[in-house]
Order: sequence, then C-alpha cells, then structure tokens
Amino acid sequence: MPIWQGSPLGRSARLEPDADIAELRQRFMATFQKFAPPPSDAQFKPAQLGPIKGEWVTVDRSSANRTLLYFHGGGFIAGSPETHRGIIARLCDHAFARAFSVGYRLAPEHLFPSGLRDGVDAYRALLQKGVEPSSIVLAGDDAGGGLAFSALLAIRNGNMPLPAACIALSPWVDMTLSGWSVLTNARSDAQLSWDLLFLTARHYLKKQSPADPYASPIYAGFRDFPPLMVHAGSAEILRDDASRIGDRAAEANVPVSVEIYDRMQHLFQANPELQEAKVSLQRLGQFIRQRAGRAPAATAAQ
Amino acid sequence: MPIWQGSPLGRSARLEPDADIAELRQRFMATFQKFAPPPSDAQFKPAQLGPIKGEWVTVDRSSANRTLLYFHGGGFIAGSPETHRGIIARLCDHAFARAFSVGYRLAPEHLFPSGLRDGVDAYRALLQKGVEPSSIVLAGDDAGGGLAFSALLAIRNGNMPLPAACIALSPWVDMTLSGWSVLTNARSDAQLSWDLLFLTARHYLKKQSPADPYASPIYAGFRDFPPLMVHAGSAEILRDDASRIGDRAAEANVPVSVEIYDRMQHLFQANPELQEAKVSLQRLGQFIRQRAGRAPAATAAQ
Repeated sequence: MPIWQGSPLGRSARLEPDADIAELRQRFMATFQKFAPPPSDAQFKPAQLGPIKGEWVTVDRSSANRTLLYFHGGGFIAGSPETHRGIIARLCDHAFARAFSVGYRLAPEHLFPSGLRDGVDAYRALLQKGVEPSSIVLAGDDAGGGLAFSALLAIRNGNMPLPAACIALSPWVDMTLSGWSVLTNARSDAQLSWDLLFLTARHYLKKQSPADPYASPIYAGFRDFPPLMVHAGSAEILRDDASRIGDRAAEANVPVSVEIYDRMQHLFQANPELQEAKVSLQRLGQFIRQRAGRAPAATAAQ
Repeated sequence: MPIWQGSPLGRSARLEPDADIAELRQRFMATFQKFAPPPSDAQFKPAQLGPIKGEWVTVDRSSANRTLLYFHGGGFIAGSPETHRGIIARLCDHAFARAFSVGYRLAPEHLFPSGLRDGVDAYRALLQKGVEPSSIVLAGDDAGGGLAFSALLAIRNGNMPLPAACIALSPWVDMTLSGWSVLTNARSDAQLSWDLLFLTARHYLKKQSPADPYASPIYAGFRDFPPLMVHAGSAEILRDDASRIGDRAAEANVPVSVEIYDRMQHLFQANPELQEAKVSLQRLGQFIRQRAGRAPAATAAQ
C-alpha cells in the first residue's frame, strides 16, 4: 500500500482515554514534521487582518487579485501557519494566488467557537481592506477544512458578501465521527484514528454538541454556498467527510466537485513528489483560477 | 469486576466492517438469551393498539390505572416483546402497572423513523381507548429507551397530551456515539462496543443524519418534558447517554433522576438476582407509582 507516511499511528498505536493534550499534539506534530518544505520562491510575512494574527504567503506567480483565506489543519488543537507553509505556498503557486494563513486560536486553551470567530473576523477584515469577495477563496485542510466550511456557513448566515469559492483538502467536517469510512478505513489510515479524533474533539468542544452545524458543517444546509471543491484520499478515515460534503452540496444545488484519490492518505498533497499530489494541487489551482479574481468588470457584474 | 454476563463481546470480538445484519442480530440475540425468564405470575396477551402490534403484560399486582408503554431494546435491529418479557414483567411488578410492549418495526427492513412512528401511533391509540395520559409512562431499554425519548419528543412537538413520566434503562439516545464513555468504557463494557453500535446505527439510518434529534434525542431540547428517571451501569459505553439526559433535562428545568450503578453493565436489571438490579427496579417502580395513575381527581387537577 503506497502509504507515503510510514507513521505508526492508526490502530497500531491506540491512545489511552487519559491521553493528555501534550500527547495528542505530539501526534499531530509528528505528521507535520514530514511535510515537504515550501518551494524556494515562497515568501512569508507576519501580518494581521484586523485583530487576527497570521501571515501572508506569496510565491512568484502570486496575484494580489486572488486571495486564499487559508486555515491550517491540526485537529483544532495543533498546527500553525508555519507548520503548513509548504502546502499553502504550493497551492498559491498553482492558483496564481496569495494566501493569508490564519493564526486562529487553538483548543483546549480556546474552545469552539473561538477559532471560527477568528476566521470570520479575518474574512471581515479582508473585506474592510477593500478586497473583493469575488476574489477570495476560503481554503483549509483537516480541521482547517472544517473551519473553512464553518466560516462559510457563518458568513452566509450573517448575510455578509460570499467569497468566490471554498476548497478543502482532507477536511474534518464531522466532530461526531459518523462517516462510514471511520470504520471501514480504520486499518488503512496511517495517520488518523478514531481514538485520536474522538479525544481531540473533546478538547475542542468540551460539553458542547459535536453535532452543532458550526462545529460539524456536515450537519448544515449548504443553500447559497459558492462553488466547492474537496479532495481526500480513499484510504483515510475522513474520506466520507469529503463525500458527504458532496451530498450536502447536491441537496442544495450548489456546484461541487469531490475527488477521492485512490489509495491516498490524509493530506497526501503535503508530499508534492507524489503524482496524485501534483494532480490534486493542479486541479485545485485551476478551480481557484477559474472561480476567483476575475477582471473587475466581470466581478462587478456578478 | 462483577460482570454478570461473561460475554465475549466488546473489544475482544471486533466486528469487521462487512459484518452483515445476521451477524449483528446474532450479537444482540446472544445477550437476550441470558436474560432471566419472567416471574411465574406474568401473563402475556397478544394485542394491537390501533394498527400497532404488541402484547399486554400483566402480573398479579398490575393495576389498569397505570400503563407502561414499553419499547424493548436491541439496537433498532433486533429484539421483540418476547425477548424482553422478563424485564418488562418485573418492572410491572415493582410499579403495580400493566405494560403494552410495542412490537415496533425494525431496521434495516424498516428504516428510521418507522419504529418511532409505531411508538407514537401506539400512544395515540392508547389515548383514543380512553387511557388517561396522566396514567401512562413511556419506558424502554437500550434502543427502546431511545425510542421512548424520541416518542416523547414527537408527542410534545405534536401537541399531544403528555404522559406522566418517561423512564429508561441503559438507553441508547445518541446515534453519533459521542459520549465520553464510548471511549473510556471500551474495555469494561462486556456487551456493547463502538463497532457494533456504529454498524447498527448505519443499518437503522442508512444516509439519514445520526444527529437528527428524533434519532438521537440527546440533541433535542427537553422543554416541557414530564419527570424523567434513567438508570445505567458505570461500566457500559452508554453510561454517558444516561448522564447527558440529565444534562438536557437540567437545561430545560425538567425534573430528572439519573442513577449510575457502580461497576454495572448494560441493562444489568435483566439479571434480577443482582442486588443492584433489585434496587434499580424498586426505585423505578416507586418512581412510576408516584408519578402515574393517581386517583382521577388528582389527575384532573394536575
């Protein structure tokens, strides 16, 4: 099985119920350390969007006319703009875009919905800076993919101008862990396990409902959402988080493209040497270029 | 550990993702076969309430002035009024009540919410027969406990007259399996496992949301519910399904008594030789007697 990360996670390294936050974070960090470094032309500049810290990510091909608001992964408890620089910079390269990588607050120090609030605040600040919503794409991986969808939900429900699109790589959008693949891929997933995500979700939510649509956007209605693209691996336990985004979008007549990459693991795009990673990033880039950052006239007419 | 049923279930007998419905049913049936038989004075009479089949259960001490509408357990896929005769008859004996044991439709032949509809139809038929709502107590164990709460929710939302109370033994009220005890009691639960319930829930729901409040009443608001009593074992993975009923009730200012019996397993009351089972049945009986089937004058004044 072409598992690119020979991590000892998954079933073989079952967590005890009393695993503490340090141990859980270590699990995520062990994965991040295997991510490929950013391309040589990538630049990172610490910045704030309104009150929200983060960093601007650009590559040579970046256009300021196309902005990704990116939420890094790490189960809502780990990760940072720094840990995910490689994948964000590569996505910018394929999308001819710049990205603001959101340094949202993490659990358990800051419970749900703190991180979501940060994301919406960052989006609002982008608009207030004069960035056209039709040039913005919400994006994220793992828990950050969940945040991208939760933020989209909050933006829609708050009657704010909608972004041009939303994309996600191996998103975690169901804190209840009810996807069929949580069981069927338990053995094939080399990175994530039910135990790890179950414990992680408790740190994020404490006593709050895991079925809250803002925590688990898979339980939201997708009415009026902009076009969506979601990629996941067929071997990961979150495969059906991706496929159910497709179901929700279809129910709401929202344009959606869900792509499940054969035998790929969680966030396989972090290893850009994989042929599947190249294809995935190219397709995401193309989707973003087609949806966001059109000429001002076309934007105004939208 | 005083596990009264030395069943090989739980972690040690992990189910494969392709386990079929016959295998799942066999798991439940293996448990039912260990239930104690009914007491010698119990009588069972096949009957219908409106269109709903089932049986009347009476013991010598039964009063027609106090009626349990009982939903047997079995994960929504197994069980029948017959399999649970012992526990229902004993409950009638302690409550000085009769019971109508509902032969609700099972999954996967009949998906959610078929069984719930049957329950509500049976309740409506009881009222149409002239049975006072203040003399009726909804009751159930395992999935039947979930049905009792789901029926209560439907009765309230449908503006039907409310029953006097609702009781449950080791209820399964969360199809998303998000209770903390699902993880922490994985090793101590001798009967149920995450795998078994995860697969069972898929047979019951297919693509329907496991967070639907009618499927998982733990996600409902309990406003206006009548008094509740719920008993569970501290060793079972559904322990926190019981404890969260207490949380929901407290949030809605509904009188509630949740009792967690130390080191007890799922539906420990099925073995009436256990001291804890005697205490539990006595307390449930006392609660029912105090809440339901008062003299007509008092009923009218309620």
